[in-house]
Amino acid sequence: MIILGIDPGTVRVGFGVVASEKGVLACVARGILPLPPAEGSARLSGIERELELLLSRHRPDRVGIERLFFAKNKKTALAVAEARGVLVNTILKHGIPLVELTPNEVKVAVTGSGTASKQGVAKMVSLLLRVPVSSLLDDATDALAVAIGASQQPLY
Amino acid sequence: MIILGIDPGTVRVGFGVVASEKGVLACVARGILPLPPAEGSARLSGIERELELLLSRHRPDRVGIERLFFAKNKKTALAVAEARGVLVNTILKHGIPLVELTPNEVKVAVTGSGTASKQGVAKMVSLLLRVPVSSLLDDATDALAVAIGASQQPLY
Repeated sequence: MIILGIDPGTVRVGFGVVASEKGVLACVARGILPLPPAEGSARLSGIERELELLLSRHRPDRVGIERLFFAKNKKTALAVAEARGVLVNTILKHGIPLVELTPNEVKVAVTGSGTASKQGVAKMVSLLLRVPVSSLLDDATDALAVAIGASQQPLY
Repeated sequence: MIILGIDPGTVRVGFGVVASEKGVLACVARGILPLPPAEGSARLSGIERELELLLSRHRPDRVGIERLFFAKNKKTALAVAEARGVLVNTILKHGIPLVELTPNEVKVAVTGSGTASKQGVAKMVSLLLRVPVSSLLDDATDALAVAIGASQQPLY
């Protein structure tokens, strides 16, 4: 099974592609969607296009994406939510099962604890996927953690 | 010139279509996008589909949409922002000029005052478009006000 994890943002949208075979995980791809330098609303067009390239390249069986909370970053929350709306709509249009996880569920899935630090999450992503921490980009690490979390969820 | 105004929401997305000929405005259509009763993310798919029907029916020369602020409704702000992201992305994909207005700019455009009440806005929409107030749906009235505001903006 191929799982795409997405960490939504406006300036940076992190992604991570994980393969899961009989409980063994492997990192297939990770990175940041290359978005145009456009500001504001124009940026949204680039997000759909780049996500569609990623979907056609990796053909994920499911996609995991983080739920948003106000607490995370009040200033940019509305802009991130607009980007997330475009991401979710694009996934649904392609008929790919969507798993939505809270930041807490992602932490529990990867570290066993909902209070794990960012470093703790990165360490466990590195261990579970056998990828050196030093080679993990920050935004892509969160996206890989989301993919791992989504791989553990039953689909209804 | 045909202007489509949109008042973004999750449960209800109001729309208003206004024709502007030599400064004389007329109401062409108004209403609420018929969205599926789906909850959460699934609702986003319906928003794009229904907006595209509206675009092909009225072929607007420009689309006006309200900017969001936290102050408006904190509880539903993130869900409304996700819906707005899908709306804006759909408009940009169709290459239609987009005018983004703050609630304050909409009030000033319609009533001349940034502190006008909801009733004051409805009254002026009714006068400017020669539509009885009693026949104005609430969400559609705001959308018509956005369309009137967008009709006054220069395009760059």
